[in-house]
Amino acid sequence: MPINQQILLDNRPTGEAQASNFKLVQSETPALSDGQVLVRHHFMSLDPYMRGRMNDAKSYAQPQPLGAVMQGGTAGEVIESRHPKFSVGDKVVGFGGWQQYSVVDATQPGSLKKVDTTHVPLSHYLGAVGMPGVTAWYGLVKIIAPKAGETLVITAASGAVGSAFGALAKARGCRVVGIAGGADKCKYVTDELGFDACIDYRQHPDAKSMSLALKEACPKGIDGYFENVGGYIFDAVLSRTNAFARIAMCGMIAGYDGQPLPLANPSLILINRLKVEGFIVSEHMEVWPEALAELGALVGSGKLRPRESVAQGIEAAPEAFLGLLKGRNFGKQLVKLI
Amino acid sequence: MPINQQILLDNRPTGEAQASNFKLVQSETPALSDGQVLVRHHFMSLDPYMRGRMNDAKSYAQPQPLGAVMQGGTAGEVIESRHPKFSVGDKVVGFGGWQQYSVVDATQPGSLKKVDTTHVPLSHYLGAVGMPGVTAWYGLVKIIAPKAGETLVITAASGAVGSAFGALAKARGCRVVGIAGGADKCKYVTDELGFDACIDYRQHPDAKSMSLALKEACPKGIDGYFENVGGYIFDAVLSRTNAFARIAMCGMIAGYDGQPLPLANPSLILINRLKVEGFIVSEHMEVWPEALAELGALVGSGKLRPRESVAQGIEAAPEAFLGLLKGRNFGKQLVKLI
Repeated sequence: MPINQQILLDNRPTGEAQASNFKLVQSETPALSDGQVLVRHHFMSLDPYMRGRMNDAKSYAQPQPLGAVMQGGTAGEVIESRHPKFSVGDKVVGFGGWQQYSVVDATQPGSLKKVDTTHVPLSHYLGAVGMPGVTAWYGLVKIIAPKAGETLVITAASGAVGSAFGALAKARGCRVVGIAGGADKCKYVTDELGFDACIDYRQHPDAKSMSLALKEACPKGIDGYFENVGGYIFDAVLSRTNAFARIAMCGMIAGYDGQPLPLANPSLILINRLKVEGFIVSEHMEVWPEALAELGALVGSGKLRPRESVAQGIEAAPEAFLGLLKGRNFGKQLVKLI
Repeated sequence: MPINQQILLDNRPTGEAQASNFKLVQSETPALSDGQVLVRHHFMSLDPYMRGRMNDAKSYAQPQPLGAVMQGGTAGEVIESRHPKFSVGDKVVGFGGWQQYSVVDATQPGSLKKVDTTHVPLSHYLGAVGMPGVTAWYGLVKIIAPKAGETLVITAASGAVGSAFGALAKARGCRVVGIAGGADKCKYVTDELGFDACIDYRQHPDAKSMSLALKEACPKGIDGYFENVGGYIFDAVLSRTNAFARIAMCGMIAGYDGQPLPLANPSLILINRLKVEGFIVSEHMEVWPEALAELGALVGSGKLRPRESVAQGIEAAPEAFLGLLKGRNFGKQLVKLI
């Protein structure tokens, strides 16, 4: 049996998450029962939502249990199978967590999915052609539902969700404006991801300055907004919304550390007759096939070229995750395990 | 020509509205041109939205112009007509403003509507079977879209919108909880309007206390909320929402005086996957016939017995309006002019 290195949540953060919240342990992988599959993880996905689950607070998901392997998406290869639909060598994505191997009960629908790596690299199934891509697709197509010519804005534009959002929105004839941190990311967002403009939030550290930057980048106002961040950027965007704008709320990364993040002027929701809708993409599995087909085609045709930040080795995961929360990654944050 | 007493907006409020913002003047009603109708107003409607229009701020409606007659809904009788569809003696509702008479260009669609006062008193066409009633209907039916058994909450429950909302929601098999100011209003809301419970916000002057009161009144949580007020009550309601709750935003009366009313924890929109939607009922004229038919039937059958606060004489309008903004009215606030 292979030795499996695993990262557990050892204790919950008070305020900012710390490397000391995690603990690296190892164990032998157990023998398989009927219906089970042993997967060797090639890549682990690191995502902002994980920070929320580290808190012991009421939320849409159960908190990450203490002393258990950190939960998260994984992509890898079947190395042993006692399920007839999976064979050794199959490339698969699942929810194996922060560890080198996982034993999956493949009789559970949705627990493991075979993927085709002919045109799409395996790692992209954790990003543009995976949960982050479908997240962008759902917020854009099902909540914002844009018309050609409308102006859309997204925060964390250089990230996994943002880059997919840009390609999907351009394919629908929209003007797309990104918000990202730093000149390098903004250049990538416009030059490689095809956004029409990108605002560097580091140059606009308060709502008033951001609102002026948005006015310049969105001369016709904002019709749709994909919220990944919260805080003063949300306030600034609201101040530039057109009547009947739609806002997809997907993350409030600026608030994960516990401090409340108030919204300064919610009466704009009334004044501009906005629709603001929160969503969790895992509750909308019915859209995944359609979304993944479009995302796979965009990646396959080169219209969506997602960038990845790849940390090497499981022991690098905590620091890579903390860097992601501070925006130090550039594109989809992964950990490579082989 | 009759002498017409009129109330103008003389100057804009800084902070709270004051009686000195208004000015009473008089003039002769002009001679009619072809297509025009002269209406003698029996009732003027006073509504919270008017406070918003007194500010010179960007909003969904043009600000009320300075030096012009205060705009607002009216119900009255045709006393002279040069339009073939209107005859002397017709009972009509329109948007005649704060004055005793109005000259209406009846060739403009929607400018004047004949009403039947056989089963519904004329004044109710400014309340339960008028704009406030349709406002309740739209928020309930088109945004909250409740299922039988769900729990709904509305602020200003004893008012014109609230009373209609209660009857419409009970007709759909919902549990309806009102929020109102004072024991008398709460008793009316439960005993006469048929709400299942009513919370006196004066007994719960902060979000924490209100949240506990809501927990008791809504043991299964809140599935729909009709927002008339804003401020700490909105915060408290958000803290009790169930997953996928819907919030219709119709007013932010607590914020009309200019102070921003922040929302303490907008991340609940994400955590509970809420839909928050602002609306203005005048932008949805297509629903008015269906809504008015249901509201008229509820009033005609006695299932909806709206209460009215009636001030006498046009000179009483400013004080009655200021009282409305402070919740001193009980039910629909009107001014009787005859």
